[in-house]
Amino acid sequence: MTYCVGLLLNEGMVLLSDTRTNAGLDNISTYRKMFVFEEPGERVIAIMTAGSLSVTQTTIARLREAVEDGDASGETSIMLAPTLLKVAEIVGNMLASVRADVDEKLSTMRQHASASLIVAGQRKGGAMRLFLIYPEGNFIEATEDTPFLQIGEHKYGKPILDRVVRPETSLADAQKAVLLSMDSTLRSNLSVGMPLDLAVIERDACRVTQARRIEAGDEGFRAMSEAWSQALRDGFTKIRL
Amino acid sequence: MTYCVGLLLNEGMVLLSDTRTNAGLDNISTYRKMFVFEEPGERVIAIMTAGSLSVTQTTIARLREAVEDGDASGETSIMLAPTLLKVAEIVGNMLASVRADVDEKLSTMRQHASASLIVAGQRKGGAMRLFLIYPEGNFIEATEDTPFLQIGEHKYGKPILDRVVRPETSLADAQKAVLLSMDSTLRSNLSVGMPLDLAVIERDACRVTQARRIEAGDEGFRAMSEAWSQALRDGFTKIRL
Repeated sequence: MTYCVGLLLNEGMVLLSDTRTNAGLDNISTYRKMFVFEEPGERVIAIMTAGSLSVTQTTIARLREAVEDGDASGETSIMLAPTLLKVAEIVGNMLASVRADVDEKLSTMRQHASASLIVAGQRKGGAMRLFLIYPEGNFIEATEDTPFLQIGEHKYGKPILDRVVRPETSLADAQKAVLLSMDSTLRSNLSVGMPLDLAVIERDACRVTQARRIEAGDEGFRAMSEAWSQALRDGFTKIRL
Repeated sequence: MTYCVGLLLNEGMVLLSDTRTNAGLDNISTYRKMFVFEEPGERVIAIMTAGSLSVTQTTIARLREAVEDGDASGETSIMLAPTLLKVAEIVGNMLASVRADVDEKLSTMRQHASASLIVAGQRKGGAMRLFLIYPEGNFIEATEDTPFLQIGEHKYGKPILDRVVRPETSLADAQKAVLLSMDSTLRSNLSVGMPLDLAVIERDACRVTQARRIEAGDEGFRAMSEAWSQALRDGFTKIRL
């Protein structure tokens, strides 16, 4: 499994992904699940992936090929597409086509492959946009009412987001919120694992303004995790039935 | 969906279930999901249910018939079974048999029915025991290391239990913990709904020592829910990144 979360806030976008992949319980690996396409100041697109690694890797690789292709156009390259909506369409179509390919191969073994993506981006002069792309290629978009999107093992980490994330949340608080959301998920589900990739895209910067890999032994993350546990226990103690 | 949780503590057992059932999103009803079989002071068995209502209702009805049958024996009646382990076996076999019946009926429509149960009980002179019965009739049991079991929509409400429930947790704190666990679930999943049924079985009482239905407008539950939200937000504010 996987847990990725993206926040669309007034001040910018905050993205967090884990890196654990597993084929069964006895084959666990670390793979990056956050991919950045960037022309700093002009356009930034970050994609987070959840699902079958063979689907997500091929999808990202083909999107990259399409960007680098000599004949790239606004119809094929996410770096040339005229709008972020068109970017979401290109990504969605690519995901659907790769998934269908892989699914057909797997059907001989009566197996099934699937994946979903979060796409966050902004082009110069446009608005920041955050999409969740479904395995079939269709997508939804974050709004003021629902300023966050999650893929993978999303349930454990949702209550904290529901309670604290609003469009006016600061980027600092937003980083705290996604890290605590991830912390709850890590504690409850072994198939989500460190290290983590955290990225911040400030509004109108059109580039990743902050990127950080948080390793398993990270002292700051550990301290935050313990402080949160303590805060929960203190809060619990104070509440009257 | 459903959310039911049972805690096995040194001082007793605490059980909480919601009451929402739905057939699609446009057909929502209220059904009790907690059922008590009791001979006060001699034996208490509480069963909580999650899954297809046609499976769980028939399972409970047949267990009750078997108890009331003139020829009831320790092999057929959960009120006569010599041990709680035997109770779990009888319940598991009944669930598996009902589920297979219903599944066969549904197979003509290419549909599928399933259910799982939590069984909590104690007989005079025996230990308190808490089981989770799977749709196939096999089961697992709560232990010192894992003193709680959940069925239905369990993920949203697990982080709080992971953090505060230990065998030595008091019955008052345990009630708080299951209610907060339910609160997180209610906020995140519409298919889990009020009212709630809460039961406490004190150690060696061999009866339900406290039973309470918490209605949608319950002032105490609302106050606790708000206090918890506030505590989470306060804790969140205090933590440094």
